[in-house]
Amino acid sequence: MKGLFITFEGPDGSGKTTQIRKLANYLKEKGIPYILTREPGGTKISDDIRSIILNPAYNELTGATEILLYAASRAQHVREKIKPALQSGKIVLCDRFVDASIAYQGYGLGVSLQTVKEINEFATEGLTPDRTYLLDISPENAKKRMLSRMEMEYKEGLDRIEQRENVYHRKVREGFSNIYRENKHRICFIDGDRSEQQVFEDIKNDVMQVIDKYFK
Amino acid sequence: MKGLFITFEGPDGSGKTTQIRKLANYLKEKGIPYILTREPGGTKISDDIRSIILNPAYNELTGATEILLYAASRAQHVREKIKPALQSGKIVLCDRFVDASIAYQGYGLGVSLQTVKEINEFATEGLTPDRTYLLDISPENAKKRMLSRMEMEYKEGLDRIEQRENVYHRKVREGFSNIYRENKHRICFIDGDRSEQQVFEDIKNDVMQVIDKYFK
Repeated sequence: MKGLFITFEGPDGSGKTTQIRKLANYLKEKGIPYILTREPGGTKISDDIRSIILNPAYNELTGATEILLYAASRAQHVREKIKPALQSGKIVLCDRFVDASIAYQGYGLGVSLQTVKEINEFATEGLTPDRTYLLDISPENAKKRMLSRMEMEYKEGLDRIEQRENVYHRKVREGFSNIYRENKHRICFIDGDRSEQQVFEDIKNDVMQVIDKYFK
Repeated sequence: MKGLFITFEGPDGSGKTTQIRKLANYLKEKGIPYILTREPGGTKISDDIRSIILNPAYNELTGATEILLYAASRAQHVREKIKPALQSGKIVLCDRFVDASIAYQGYGLGVSLQTVKEINEFATEGLTPDRTYLLDISPENAKKRMLSRMEMEYKEGLDRIEQRENVYHRKVREGFSNIYRENKHRICFIDGDRSEQQVFEDIKNDVMQVIDKYFK
């Protein structure tokens, strides 16, 4: 793989989507070739799968189904989009990846971490990010941001995962902390309870170091 | 589980859908409580997943995605429909189940059988049919039946899996034979190259024995 695979992780409302867009714009200005993509989704088939996963009407969707749908969406995304982009030497910026499944389905829903990891190992053919930015945010701030987003997008409201209870989102946050502790060499922990610009400065400085290390 | 879980397997064109319907009618006449269901599908969510799997426009859908989508559809089907029906003491007649994934994705697409089995073990929580009818048919007859079906339903044509090449369908048939050899206690092998009525007699006689053994 000649490219560089960078993922953004963190709870809903942590600001990762804003930050990944800022980073994409920054790379564009610098003339560095990249693609910006997200999970679940990223390809036509994966987007079709996404619409099942997030459908707020599907209350009966089981945890096992959810894990397998995320993995299916990811299998398609990796093979059709991420790997070809990496092979052509691009930087791939991806909003959520395997860590999100471990945090949300493993820690959040209480499915065996080993099972979630094995299914995702198959889905990704073992592809692991070169660098991951984990945006941490206090539950209070996350909730505030989610509510203000809901007001802005009041027509749509929250999706099936976002609607879950506080206790679930607390487990997810703890899950992300554990994943960080086990992968400190790969994951850059970012305090998301600061201003957009402060957060972006940290990410930008780290990314430029990583790019220097990988491409020079 | 108080009920009885019966599956029908075999290549496309083997007549299993016709036979499972005949058996359902027979059970109805006898006043034996049953449900008739099929894979991929069987629930609203699973049907949504089915429409992605079989979409003839999705040529780019990878083998790994296919395996995980079948497993996701099955996970939902087992938990929402099959297990509750078995728990209420019904006979569940299911058109295709895990054996189909081992034959089509394992043997047909060449994915590790161990992987296909592990993913399906998770999807089904280890649920195994009590009895399986494997309808075997020569490739020539299978092709003839598929072509005549295509003429009848010419507006729709064949789905994404049915469109695959002969060599794939030959591997699938060999796969089914291997699965039979490893599960002779569970699988009843049926020569599908005979008349509808001859085939049904075999199935009916065996089913009634199985029912007697299980419920009496």
